[in-house]
Amino acid sequence: MAQNIYDDPEFFANYAQLPRSRAGLDGAPEWPALRSLLPDMHDLRVLDLGCGYGWFCRWAREQGAAHVLGLDVSEKMLQRAREETADPAIVYLSADLEAAPLPDEWFDVAYSSLALHYIEGLEGLFDRVCAALVPGGIFVFSTEHPIYTASSEPKWSTGANGRVTWPVDRYLDEGPRTTDWLAKGVVKQHRTVATYLNLLLGSGFAITYVEEWGPSAEQIAAEPKWVHERERPPFLIVAAAKP
Amino acid sequence: MAQNIYDDPEFFANYAQLPRSRAGLDGAPEWPALRSLLPDMHDLRVLDLGCGYGWFCRWAREQGAAHVLGLDVSEKMLQRAREETADPAIVYLSADLEAAPLPDEWFDVAYSSLALHYIEGLEGLFDRVCAALVPGGIFVFSTEHPIYTASSEPKWSTGANGRVTWPVDRYLDEGPRTTDWLAKGVVKQHRTVATYLNLLLGSGFAITYVEEWGPSAEQIAAEPKWVHERERPPFLIVAAAKP
Repeated sequence: MAQNIYDDPEFFANYAQLPRSRAGLDGAPEWPALRSLLPDMHDLRVLDLGCGYGWFCRWAREQGAAHVLGLDVSEKMLQRAREETADPAIVYLSADLEAAPLPDEWFDVAYSSLALHYIEGLEGLFDRVCAALVPGGIFVFSTEHPIYTASSEPKWSTGANGRVTWPVDRYLDEGPRTTDWLAKGVVKQHRTVATYLNLLLGSGFAITYVEEWGPSAEQIAAEPKWVHERERPPFLIVAAAKP
Repeated sequence: MAQNIYDDPEFFANYAQLPRSRAGLDGAPEWPALRSLLPDMHDLRVLDLGCGYGWFCRWAREQGAAHVLGLDVSEKMLQRAREETADPAIVYLSADLEAAPLPDEWFDVAYSSLALHYIEGLEGLFDRVCAALVPGGIFVFSTEHPIYTASSEPKWSTGANGRVTWPVDRYLDEGPRTTDWLAKGVVKQHRTVATYLNLLLGSGFAITYVEEWGPSAEQIAAEPKWVHERERPPFLIVAAAKP
């Protein structure tokens, strides 16, 4: 199974301080882009892969979803999710996404926010998600963008002319990358944009929309530290449908 | 219409010296990847968008294609194509790809090699290509990869540690980029991977395969100057089908 860095005390403590942890979905600047790809949730059965604190599960229920299943590998995250939301129509389960069995043709919507770049066995997961969706069901996910994950030293570079660039290397060399984000030795899986898309196609999905997300000018004005995030996209967002 | 740099004498003279110009399709290292996405050409009607010297048109006929239409904006390229291949089943036409009318539901295969990054009005072209294909027809193209076209200074950087990287900036800032490749002031259109894919989807295509192409280890061994080309992909290759 993939590394479970979220149960590392240092990582968990630092993660809890991020705006996206403290402010829920509205603390994630890419949430409006994800939300725009989701259907009306009324009466739908919803799966959240890597549910974390359960913000999305709670939102889906607030929007009228009939049943929500939130899966996460981190017991600490699930404990917090259960404390935040006591709702009999939301089930939070501890699960290794690389192996968790899923019910056959049951969900209308599958969702995943910034979890898939931790997964080694993505092909098997996509196969199981496609099998778990009803025909016409949709899958929307975000992941760290491959331009971001590729680099052996993922940080901005400022040239002699003052130009700020993101140095890309090893883009076509797929596999683990170890970084020190929030804690030392966090392992992420780098794969190309093409691999994400071809694995979806191979699992039987039709691709319906692709977004290489970066903050808008308005978001940068409100949060100046994002000023460079349009130089290269931090996140890849994909919407796919089961035919 | 887009810039017609191919009729610039300096550009044309330098282009003629490239391996891909001198050796035909086999001089293009990405050709095997493109070829693998093409169907058996026997009896098919084939459209080549940006046919250049006509290498692909000739290959399609050698493979049994019934009719081939090669379009190019450069009169010099078309003159050379007509000299190279006198075949009544190949028609070479001067055309601005941004405006050229195409017959309705006539072609089985549309193909384009490294031409689309010169096109401003890509959405309209994709619409016309989709309309020109029969149901079940396929469209295979290569273009310069957006990681390559984004950069305001598209050249390798070597850090203090000897690490060679490709500096990406302005990735989400779509529009023209002016470079000095083969001649001064060559204008290419930068757009993101997502835009290429979403424009295809918006035109009615289903995406069937995406490749971020880089040379294989064997190709680098045979052509050592490509040693860095796996750090970031030089070309984007997409296969799409008209449902």
